Amino acid sequence: MLFARTAIIGTGMIGASFARALKKSSLSGEIVGCGRSMDNLSLALNRGYVDSVTIDPAEAVNGADLIVLAVPVEAMEAVVSSVSSCISPGALVVDVGSIKGELVAKIQSLIPDGAEFVGCHPIAGSERSGSVASVEDLFDGAQCIITPTGKNSEGAVSKVADLWRALGSKVSRMDPVEHDKLLGLVSHFPHLAAYAIINAIEDTKEGAISLSGAGLKDTTRIAMSPASLWRDICMLNRENIIPVIEGFIGELDSMKNCLREGDSEGLEAMLRKAETRRMSIED
Amino acid sequence: MLFARTAIIGTGMIGASFARALKKSSLSGEIVGCGRSMDNLSLALNRGYVDSVTIDPAEAVNGADLIVLAVPVEAMEAVVSSVSSCISPGALVVDVGSIKGELVAKIQSLIPDGAEFVGCHPIAGSERSGSVASVEDLFDGAQCIITPTGKNSEGAVSKVADLWRALGSKVSRMDPVEHDKLLGLVSHFPHLAAYAIINAIEDTKEGAISLSGAGLKDTTRIAMSPASLWRDICMLNRENIIPVIEGFIGELDSMKNCLREGDSEGLEAMLRKAETRRMSIED
Repeated sequence: MLFARTAIIGTGMIGASFARALKKSSLSGEIVGCGRSMDNLSLALNRGYVDSVTIDPAEAVNGADLIVLAVPVEAMEAVVSSVSSCISPGALVVDVGSIKGELVAKIQSLIPDGAEFVGCHPIAGSERSGSVASVEDLFDGAQCIITPTGKNSEGAVSKVADLWRALGSKVSRMDPVEHDKLLGLVSHFPHLAAYAIINAIEDTKEGAISLSGAGLKDTTRIAMSPASLWRDICMLNRENIIPVIEGFIGELDSMKNCLREGDSEGLEAMLRKAETRRMSIED
Repeated sequence: MLFARTAIIGTGMIGASFARALKKSSLSGEIVGCGRSMDNLSLALNRGYVDSVTIDPAEAVNGADLIVLAVPVEAMEAVVSSVSSCISPGALVVDVGSIKGELVAKIQSLIPDGAEFVGCHPIAGSERSGSVASVEDLFDGAQCIITPTGKNSEGAVSKVADLWRALGSKVSRMDPVEHDKLLGLVSHFPHLAAYAIINAIEDTKEGAISLSGAGLKDTTRIAMSPASLWRDICMLNRENIIPVIEGFIGELDSMKNCLREGDSEGLEAMLRKAETRRMSIED
């Protein structure tokens, strides 16, 4: 057992999935779930995802040697501020958020001496929300990026890496700023693209998407992700997202020009490049 | 039994899936597969997807009372021209292509008197190709658009609709030109968008997509579709695709402006609109 008591702050889709995976791994003693909605917490408790629940973050972190921040990125600083004085010395604090960058340093500055915060981003999730949407093996086989800084001890970093590996994740280390650049590309930008695809279709002909086949449904599945969550993520990482949107518009413009000019070869070259690239990753 | 002998011209992913579904339905006697590659045909024959095979389209259609054109849209006219004199009076000819519009009238003009062509577009498929990728229940639960014209008899149209319903599809009728407008929106445009997403990401940082989670993989799955096939479809339907690309670029520009100006509310309104729209269709 790596941890005697784990506090999961935020028992939404990701937080509850983490609780379930941790429970299955037997790496933790009591797992306490903390959230704002008793409905959601009760469901997590009744289904045995967590051992106890509270709506008071301070109570949750009290005595915990593992604290998992699974609240929206926008709320992270405020939550940590409010519980800072209750964090035990020696506690390990991790998050599961999509934004790192400056946020990591801000959170670290709020953590009391003796405790450590290591930023974590499991590349896993779904467009669904709430503990009802949690999945026990969500992290199994998934990538997890950890973003330690010079303030972290090697011992804490290893322990965090071991934790994720125990849940089945492939762990890689990355600088927090580098993380945001990369995730802006492979996660934040595609979400905006998917939302925009839906709007472009429906703005042209309302109701058209009711004729979607499996292809369009797959392509726009992430457009069912909560708008408020992705608004915050994209705003926080806008400096990295704006350039790729501009590159994307350039690519679309080129395709449009090929269509307009009847440049079949030019269009095929663009499509083939993308096809080859996409085929190079595991599906 | 609706048909005594069926010829499937083109035993790729769609053609072979059609053969398998038809066989399961027991609506046809002998099913003949016709294609250019003996490897692909042998696989279809050995697995029992079809009862016999030939590389000669004229031989395939000879005596067939159902002829299914499952070749790429670009090849459709040439194939029908080459077999026209061998099509039996009373034969029903259908296709499964993604483009209708003027192509329907062209094909109809090539069909001998007594036989009829009814354009069909089952909204089903995958990014994979060849009979090896065929799926027996591909059309079960899928939408199928049929595009009859004034040249078709009500009897032929009903028979075609019955055929698709027997394979489990939900049939709707549409004008060929209207079909291309709608499919340009919900199928052709999203394919281009998916290819462009991959290129925008990889052009920004080569290798980045190797970090894709399930979301980006779903979003770009259709970018694994054969480039040459989609080049042709998009070129043939460019007049309908260009305007939606322009609308899409406008939507992306608005998102970019919200990000640049820190207009969180404006961005959320766009995302929420898309989220609500996407939630309104079955997944």
